[in-house]
Amino acid sequence: MKINTLVIIKRKPWFREAFRVKYSVFPDVWEKALFFAIFSFVICLLHSVGFPVQQPILSSLIPTIVLGLLLVFRTNSANERFWEGRKLWGGIVNHLRNLTWQIWVNIKEETPQDQEHKINALNLLTVFAIATKNHLRSEGISEEMRPLLSAYYYHHLQTSQHLPLQIAAYLGEYLQQEYQKKHLNEYQLTNMQQLINQLMDMVGGCERILKTPIPNSYSIHLKQLLLIYCLVLPFQLVDQIEWWTIPFVSIVSYIVYGIEAIALEIENPFGRDRNDLPLDQICQAINQNIQDFILNQKR
Amino acid sequence: MKINTLVIIKRKPWFREAFRVKYSVFPDVWEKALFFAIFSFVICLLHSVGFPVQQPILSSLIPTIVLGLLLVFRTNSANERFWEGRKLWGGIVNHLRNLTWQIWVNIKEETPQDQEHKINALNLLTVFAIATKNHLRSEGISEEMRPLLSAYYYHHLQTSQHLPLQIAAYLGEYLQQEYQKKHLNEYQLTNMQQLINQLMDMVGGCERILKTPIPNSYSIHLKQLLLIYCLVLPFQLVDQIEWWTIPFVSIVSYIVYGIEAIALEIENPFGRDRNDLPLDQICQAINQNIQDFILNQKR
Amino acid sequence: MKINTLVIIKRKPWFREAFRVKYSVFPDVWEKALFFAIFSFVICLLHSVGFPVQQPILSSLIPTIVLGLLLVFRTNSANERFWEGRKLWGGIVNHLRNLTWQIWVNIKEETPQDQEHKINALNLLTVFAIATKNHLRSEGISEEMRPLLSAYYYHHLQTSQHLPLQIAAYLGEYLQQEYQKKHLNEYQLTNMQQLINQLMDMVGGCERILKTPIPNSYSIHLKQLLLIYCLVLPFQLVDQIEWWTIPFVSIVSYIVYGIEAIALEIENPFGRDRNDLPLDQICQAINQNIQDFILNQKR
Amino acid sequence: MKINTLVIIKRKPWFREAFRVKYSVFPDVWEKALFFAIFSFVICLLHSVGFPVQQPILSSLIPTIVLGLLLVFRTNSANERFWEGRKLWGGIVNHLRNLTWQIWVNIKEETPQDQEHKINALNLLTVFAIATKNHLRSEGISEEMRPLLSAYYYHHLQTSQHLPLQIAAYLGEYLQQEYQKKHLNEYQLTNMQQLINQLMDMVGGCERILKTPIPNSYSIHLKQLLLIYCLVLPFQLVDQIEWWTIPFVSIVSYIVYGIEAIALEIENPFGRDRNDLPLDQICQAINQNIQDFILNQKR
Amino acid sequence: MKINTLVIIKRKPWFREAFRVKYSVFPDVWEKALFFAIFSFVICLLHSVGFPVQQPILSSLIPTIVLGLLLVFRTNSANERFWEGRKLWGGIVNHLRNLTWQIWVNIKEETPQDQEHKINALNLLTVFAIATKNHLRSEGISEEMRPLLSAYYYHHLQTSQHLPLQIAAYLGEYLQQEYQKKHLNEYQLTNMQQLINQLMDMVGGCERILKTPIPNSYSIHLKQLLLIYCLVLPFQLVDQIEWWTIPFVSIVSYIVYGIEAIALEIENPFGRDRNDLPLDQICQAINQNIQDFILNQKR
Repeated sequence: MKINTLVIIKRKPWFREAFRVKYSVFPDVWEKALFFAIFSFVICLLHSVGFPVQQPILSSLIPTIVLGLLLVFRTNSANERFWEGRKLWGGIVNHLRNLTWQIWVNIKEETPQDQEHKINALNLLTVFAIATKNHLRSEGISEEMRPLLSAYYYHHLQTSQHLPLQIAAYLGEYLQQEYQKKHLNEYQLTNMQQLINQLMDMVGGCERILKTPIPNSYSIHLKQLLLIYCLVLPFQLVDQIEWWTIPFVSIVSYIVYGIEAIALEIENPFGRDRNDLPLDQICQAINQNIQDFILNQKR
Repeated sequence: MKINTLVIIKRKPWFREAFRVKYSVFPDVWEKALFFAIFSFVICLLHSVGFPVQQPILSSLIPTIVLGLLLVFRTNSANERFWEGRKLWGGIVNHLRNLTWQIWVNIKEETPQDQEHKINALNLLTVFAIATKNHLRSEGISEEMRPLLSAYYYHHLQTSQHLPLQIAAYLGEYLQQEYQKKHLNEYQLTNMQQLINQLMDMVGGCERILKTPIPNSYSIHLKQLLLIYCLVLPFQLVDQIEWWTIPFVSIVSYIVYGIEAIALEIENPFGRDRNDLPLDQICQAINQNIQDFILNQKR
Repeated sequence: MKINTLVIIKRKPWFREAFRVKYSVFPDVWEKALFFAIFSFVICLLHSVGFPVQQPILSSLIPTIVLGLLLVFRTNSANERFWEGRKLWGGIVNHLRNLTWQIWVNIKEETPQDQEHKINALNLLTVFAIATKNHLRSEGISEEMRPLLSAYYYHHLQTSQHLPLQIAAYLGEYLQQEYQKKHLNEYQLTNMQQLINQLMDMVGGCERILKTPIPNSYSIHLKQLLLIYCLVLPFQLVDQIEWWTIPFVSIVSYIVYGIEAIALEIENPFGRDRNDLPLDQICQAINQNIQDFILNQKR
Repeated sequence: MKINTLVIIKRKPWFREAFRVKYSVFPDVWEKALFFAIFSFVICLLHSVGFPVQQPILSSLIPTIVLGLLLVFRTNSANERFWEGRKLWGGIVNHLRNLTWQIWVNIKEETPQDQEHKINALNLLTVFAIATKNHLRSEGISEEMRPLLSAYYYHHLQTSQHLPLQIAAYLGEYLQQEYQKKHLNEYQLTNMQQLINQLMDMVGGCERILKTPIPNSYSIHLKQLLLIYCLVLPFQLVDQIEWWTIPFVSIVSYIVYGIEAIALEIENPFGRDRNDLPLDQICQAINQNIQDFILNQKR
Repeated sequence: MKINTLVIIKRKPWFREAFRVKYSVFPDVWEKALFFAIFSFVICLLHSVGFPVQQPILSSLIPTIVLGLLLVFRTNSANERFWEGRKLWGGIVNHLRNLTWQIWVNIKEETPQDQEHKINALNLLTVFAIATKNHLRSEGISEEMRPLLSAYYYHHLQTSQHLPLQIAAYLGEYLQQEYQKKHLNEYQLTNMQQLINQLMDMVGGCERILKTPIPNSYSIHLKQLLLIYCLVLPFQLVDQIEWWTIPFVSIVSYIVYGIEAIALEIENPFGRDRNDLPLDQICQAINQNIQDFILNQKR
């Protein structure tokens, strides 16, 4: 089944799951945890030689609730960006699929050439997906598009500044020509053009996510809070738990910076990071779906 | 009334309700609770023979607020997936129902054969629902579809890679043919084709929920937090409540892991688990609705 | 003004407002509060005769934050169901109103009989609302529909399994007939049929709310938490406040179970409970609006 | 610029801002604060003469988190109602504006009288806004409508039960007449009728906000919590801070009742309170916009 | 790639990131932090000469949870305004882009003059974006519009009260004229007019964000809470940490007022502040996109 070609949710044994370093945020956060471990070590050293570094009252400096709520706010924002990106790509898949069957069923074929044009148009749909992927990664036209494009289009696209917009215009032109040949009626034309419009809206939505980070002042304010919170911790604890301060502060900094690291990682979901959307696979699945559909109809 | 054939909300006596082990998360969590009970037992043993395992300050290692907020975040995400899945299936039911009455009312019948075609088309609507259900469970064509399909379609579907897409194409072809026989006008054609498009969008939405888990780094980070939280508990408590530490830690681990277990259980709502959506019943209800409708019109 | 016939927000003196037992959750919760009062009494008794029942550390057994957040989560879910139900009925009112003026303005009358048909169709709109109300309460055809229906329809509806779907089909047929008499053009036909589709979507939305409770495992887990929380309270307090434990535990259990009771009460908003949606009044208002409109146009 | 005629955000010096009694909730809450001051005074008096009124353990009677979360839930609900009301009125402004230019551009004028009809229709748009405002305030036809209405309409509207619905019907009739005179095509007719439908949906949305308060059981339960919370405070504090209890309890009751007061104030945004939506100004702006537009086109 | 001309997310070294004073809220908040530093200094002075200013119980005067939740509520409201503004502008970009390719593909050119008209119309699209930007900043017609407008339009727009509405009317007129010349069919006309309607809806949405601040009573109540919270802090702390009170209170006031400052900064996103939307760049990108598209088609 096609459905198996993308990501699948598998449940590992819960205990081992917690130690999957590769997918956890450990690689992003260990440096910070180490830094605070060293910092705590220095404080402990000063304390052990009698410097009065203990300052228990500091625990109320940053109310935990304020820190917690801001972290959750940050997490929610990043998460919404991730899911909005996912929904937009889901929408692109759906619209391309709908265009597939509508082009096939609605456009009359009078000559074998008409069917050829039709198949070219269906291939353009895959190219649209790939072009959007490349566009979001600041890449231009790529090799995987070449077999799906006529030589003329491939050449013409080289100079285009906005690939998806240009491909949408090709599709629009194809429909307009078929309409003038009376191969489809006015309603169907308008209807399919609206699907193309909605595709362009989704591309625009992805661009919006990519180009608008959360406001700078938020992320800096949160970074300042996290820094103060972790820097102040050893002073609170050193008097009570002495050398245990070191692992304690490391773990706390790992936890809170870890939450921030996840937000940073997923807020831009169109890249090639571990947890980004599997855009390459999605594009392949679209291509596969369309080729299967063509084969199945021809039988 | 049809409405009674699906799930019904009944209120049991509140006291007994809390002990319905079968529907609670007990079966998923008892192993973890047992593990922490044994772990606590070991700590208590060490404490009773005089090892200095007590470490009360650890209580602030993971701020409860951070744990609580992350648990709620996890719960919300899973819950949203569940309800989105439910809404999509609700939408599929609605759209199939709307297509039912529109096909019946709008398409003119000139010969008895026309009515037969119409009834075949209405049966295809049920098949669409069943095909979507199977597709989401990675199953192919099933026996329950056979009585609703012509032999040709049944055979042709065997090789299809994406059942719902193929059935949508059949429906589109039927409408296109009736339109060419002048049995419905252009607006009605376009209108019904849009309903089919929206059905395909909903299938795509279900696929999106199925294929995109919440980002790995989140679920692993939460698992790490829960693990640290529960492992650290006995050290905090052993000095004060001694052997009572064992039931205490078991209950706490049951509570917090229970919340995670619920999230895991409902985040993929298309399977056959206790709390998943009753897709089999929904498909039967659709079939029942359509058969009743046909019978009622013929009278 | 019509607007006054439904629920109106009045502000009572704030002090007395807090004691309106009738609308508060007191009737649903007093039994539980009493149970915990008796339970506390037993604990106090044991304590006063010297049993070592006090166990202050238990206060951290269920982190208040986790309990609070789960209660709020429960409350939010129930509240969303209530408001979604309200929005769906708001949408039904709007769509019936729009169909009212569109049928009146758009459909040409050539004979007095045409106007009669029109008025019958407008009456069908009210019947649609009543039928939806009954459908959601698992009731069938009711007396209040009889004056609004022709004898034929009234008889035919008796055997229908899904009243709203059948009435939608009647409306669709009426429009189709008028269209064939050239009393309205194709665009207006399609447009009004889409309004009927959307009405059916809203009926489907109400069914979805009715038939899908929040997942069982959630509500049971919350009940277990509440039970443990309240059962554990007297052990925490008895040592410090002795006999005051009894009112204290009663009030706390009243508060937390009260929040759960509200959620239970409003999560199914289509019944006949105190706080449910005033569906009977809404249906009467629709009928009134339509009769007024007819009268006003005829003048 | 027109944009300046409505509310403008100005930043006062932050310090003085906090003391703007007029716009704060002080006028709504001072009575309650005073009541609790007097109540605290009585408790302090009893304490000073030796009655054992202190009861420090009471502080955990209502978990602050539960109170806080319920307050926020209340605040959110009220806020959503306010913004939904604002969005609906924003939508009314937009739709009236779109109807303005569409009526002007799309409807052909053949005689000077046609232009007069057109201007009358544009005036009806303003009347629609005013009628909606009055309808939401349970007021009927008002003087400010008279210059914008023909004598016939002004008279006919007197007996209407639902002003906006009647005006929508006038607009629909105008469009239908122009369509029969071939001054606009069928698509444009349908298109504009859909805009009128959406206007009626927005009116229905406002009615929904007006007529459905948040469920009674919520608001009463919250009032009970607030009452218990504030009544219990002096018993907790009197032993420690003695006469300072009086200002302390006043301020706390001011803060928590203040949050409830804001929610009460904004949850019905269509009235004439200080913080309600500036409906009069919005209606004037709509009128101004339309008059300007007419003037500008005639030049 | 065009995509690089707008804002790009770059990750600086985490440590230095926290000290980017320029983008942090430091410039907005330092005065308040200084004020509370001086105030604390006075309290410390009084304490050191023996005045009994310490009052530790005050710490529970404003429950941290209530403060935290209100701050988050404020933050969320402001954030939603920011993102809604961003989405509306994203929608404006998308719709202008869709109008671009639809005007180019759908409107037949019979004479060279027709192409000239078409290019003028495409330029009007850019002017629409600039006019909206100016409108939201209470500015009128600007120099950057001049090269894109014909002399007649430039002159006529001078007296317009609502630039975007007027430009929408120009576009509508152009389409109407081309339709009368039979250069496009009725469906395409209606379709493009709907895009223009939606553009006007988005302009209206921006106006709504601009003109409706969050209710006054909220912002004042929050300011009062923050003031009480910070004024009370030194009295709580002075007895324990003496002169350390001064930095402590400064930092806390910096943190909580910083959160409010961010909300104030981003809740009106259409200005020229550091963190506002880059409207000038967006307008330039639209212009660039359209010019590229024209060039590319002509090749």
